[in-house]
Amino acid sequence: MKILKKGITAPKGFYALGKAVGIKKNKKKDFAIVCSKKICNTVAVYTKNYVKGAPLYVTKDHLKDGKAQAVVITSGVANVCTGKKGIKDAEDITKLVGKELDIKKDNILIAQTGLIGAFTPMKKIKAGVKGIKKQLTKDSENATKAILTTDTVKKEIAVKTGNIIIGAMAKGAGMIHPNMATMLCFIFTDADFPSSKLKTMLKKAVDNSFNMLSVDMDTSTSDMVMLMANGEAGKIEEKKFQSALNFICKELAKKIATDGEGATKLIETTVKNAKTEEDAKKIAKSIVTSNLVKCMIFGKDVNWGRIMCAAGYADVPFNQEKIDIFINNIKIVSKGKGLNKNKKKIKKTLNKKKVDILVNLNKGSSKATAWGCDLTYKYVKINAHYHT
Amino acid sequence: MKILKKGITAPKGFYALGKAVGIKKNKKKDFAIVCSKKICNTVAVYTKNYVKGAPLYVTKDHLKDGKAQAVVITSGVANVCTGKKGIKDAEDITKLVGKELDIKKDNILIAQTGLIGAFTPMKKIKAGVKGIKKQLTKDSENATKAILTTDTVKKEIAVKTGNIIIGAMAKGAGMIHPNMATMLCFIFTDADFPSSKLKTMLKKAVDNSFNMLSVDMDTSTSDMVMLMANGEAGKIEEKKFQSALNFICKELAKKIATDGEGATKLIETTVKNAKTEEDAKKIAKSIVTSNLVKCMIFGKDVNWGRIMCAAGYADVPFNQEKIDIFINNIKIVSKGKGLNKNKKKIKKTLNKKKVDILVNLNKGSSKATAWGCDLTYKYVKINAHYHT
Repeated sequence: MKILKKGITAPKGFYALGKAVGIKKNKKKDFAIVCSKKICNTVAVYTKNYVKGAPLYVTKDHLKDGKAQAVVITSGVANVCTGKKGIKDAEDITKLVGKELDIKKDNILIAQTGLIGAFTPMKKIKAGVKGIKKQLTKDSENATKAILTTDTVKKEIAVKTGNIIIGAMAKGAGMIHPNMATMLCFIFTDADFPSSKLKTMLKKAVDNSFNMLSVDMDTSTSDMVMLMANGEAGKIEEKKFQSALNFICKELAKKIATDGEGATKLIETTVKNAKTEEDAKKIAKSIVTSNLVKCMIFGKDVNWGRIMCAAGYADVPFNQEKIDIFINNIKIVSKGKGLNKNKKKIKKTLNKKKVDILVNLNKGSSKATAWGCDLTYKYVKINAHYHT
Repeated sequence: MKILKKGITAPKGFYALGKAVGIKKNKKKDFAIVCSKKICNTVAVYTKNYVKGAPLYVTKDHLKDGKAQAVVITSGVANVCTGKKGIKDAEDITKLVGKELDIKKDNILIAQTGLIGAFTPMKKIKAGVKGIKKQLTKDSENATKAILTTDTVKKEIAVKTGNIIIGAMAKGAGMIHPNMATMLCFIFTDADFPSSKLKTMLKKAVDNSFNMLSVDMDTSTSDMVMLMANGEAGKIEEKKFQSALNFICKELAKKIATDGEGATKLIETTVKNAKTEEDAKKIAKSIVTSNLVKCMIFGKDVNWGRIMCAAGYADVPFNQEKIDIFINNIKIVSKGKGLNKNKKKIKKTLNKKKVDILVNLNKGSSKATAWGCDLTYKYVKINAHYHT
C-alpha cells in the first residue's frame, strides 16, 4: 500500500468541484460535488442520533438500491430540525444537480452541515447549480475546502493498493462558526465490489476509526460516512482493500481529532491485554473522553490518577492491582500504584502535539485504540462566546 | 416537613468535631468525626468505579452487620491506588478512633478524599486523634468544613418531619486543589428503622438525586453516601421519611452542582411525558452533561439545536417532530422546530444563577430531572494549570 499526494479524484473516473454559492458569508466556498463517470456501488453509515438532518433521510432513500453516481455537499446550514420543507429542499437540490449533470436524481446523494434549525437558501442554490457539468475537474482542492464549516484545515488522503486507488475527504470539529461538531467523510474508489461487500468492509473500518473518535462526546445530527466504488480499476483482494480502507479511516479520524475545536494536542489511547475487544474499546473511549484527562493533557500535568479513574468507570470489571499505565512510552503506573519518580520525565514529553496513553490490563489479549483531543480555554470560548 | 437552620447534629444523640491534623497545608481543617451516643442501623451506597479507594473497602467490611456508631472523614489525600498499605492505614485509623471513643473498630466507618495515589500521613493522624472524645459537640460547622477539598462552600441541611429529624452534609466539586470531583454525603437521623428498610429508602433517594447529578461525567473513585439512624426519636411513617430523605438528597445534589468546579450556573433539566422514567432520566442526563450545552449556558447563547442534539443521542428513540423545549419557562422549540423569535426573551433570563431546561417528549407520562453546571474557562484552568 502506498500513500499518494492526492485526494478524492485520485481513483479513476472521479471528478469534483467546489465553489461559493452564497450560503456562507464573504464568498467562502460552501458547495461541492463529487461525480463518477459511471454509476457506483455505494454504501453509507449514518449518525445514531435520533434527531437526524433532512439530507440523511434523502440520501438513505436514494441509496435503497445501493447505487449512486454523484454526491452534493453544502456547508453553512445543516438543514436539521427543518421539518417537511427541509426534506423537500434536500430532495430539490438532488433534482437540480441531477438535471445539470444528466443523472437521475435517485443517483445523487446529499450531505449538509452547519447551523441547526436554519433553512437552505434555495434561490442561491438554483443559481449556483447552473453550468456545474463543465466545472467538474480532476482537481480536488476546492471540493475539500467547500465542505468545511468550523474546521481549520482540509482533510484528505489517497492510497494505492495493487491496481486500485481509494481517495477520501472528511470534515469535522473546527473553530470559526460554533455549532455542531458534525463529521462527514466521503470515500471514493475505482475498485470493483458489490454494495453488500462494501457495506461490511465500511462498517468494519468505521468501527475502529470514526467510532473510536471523540472531540466532545456530542454525537452530531448529521454524521455520515459514504463509500462509492465505480469499478474502473477492476477487482482486488478483499483483505488488501479492507486494510487500505482501515488505514484511510484511521488517518482521517486522527486528522479530525487533531483539528478538534480549540485543541492543541491529539490524544491516542490504546488499551491492551483486555478480555475482549469490546472491553478494550470501552476503556480507551472512557479515557479519551474524560474532561479531567483532557484538561490534564492541555495543562501538561501528569495526574495519572485521572486515567485510572476514567478506566474504572468504563463499566468494565478489572483488578486495579494488575494495571500498568504508560504516557508517551514512559511507565507511570505499575500494578495499580504510581511510579511518581517518572512524572518529571513524562512532563518533558508533553510539549509534543501528540500524546500517547497506553493502558495494559494484563488480563486477556484484546486491544483497541481511541482518539481525542485536549480540552482548552479555546473550546469553551468557541462554544460559549460566539453567537449562533 | 420543616427545614431547620441546623445540620448533622440536629437529630437527637449525634455529636461532631472537625479540626486540622496536618494532612492539608496551612492548618486547614482536614479531620472530622460524627458520632452517635448509641449504635445506629446504618447503610451506604458506593461508587460504581472499578477503581475504589481503600476507605471504601474498610467501610464496606465494617458495615457487613448494618451497624455503626461513628464515622471518621479525612480530606487532602484520597487513599486510592495505595495497595495493601492503604487498606491497613484506613483500618488503623478506625482502630485509633475507636480506642479514643471507646467504640469497637468495627462500628467505626471511614471516608477519605483528595489526591489519588498519595498515602495518609499516619503520624499526624495518631497525634490528631488524641483527646477527640472531649472535642465532640453539638456544633456541626467544623465538621462540615473539614470534609471539603476543592469545594468553595460547605453543604449541609436538616429537616424535621413528624417527631424525627434528618441532618446531612456533603462535599463535592470545588476549585482549590484540582483533583477528583469526589462526592461524599453523610446523613444522620434519630428515626428508628431497620437497616434493610434504610437501604431501600436510601437507594430510592440517591437514584433521583445524586445519581442524576453531573459536574463533568467523571465518576470518582471515592463516592459514598451514608445513612445512620440511631432511633432516638422513635418510629415514623415510611412514606414521610422517604419524602424527607428525597428532599435532603436533592437539595444537596443541587448544592454540589452549584459549587461545581468553575461553575457560574446551576442547570436543572427536566424531561416529561417520556414513555418510561428510565427514558426520561437518560435524556435529562444527556442534556445536562453535554459539553456543548454547558458551554452555551456559560455563554448565555440560546443555541437550542444543541439541546435537540443531546436529546437525540441519549439512546432513547423518539419522534423529533413531537418535541417541545422550554428554557426558563419560555418556549424555544415547538414540535421539533425553533421558535427563534423567543431567543432574545430567553437570552435576557440567562443572567440568573439557575437555568431550567424543560423537554416535553409528548409521548408518555413519565418524568425525570437532572442537575449539572456550565462549562467555563475556570473549569479548564482548575483542571489544567494547577499542579498535582
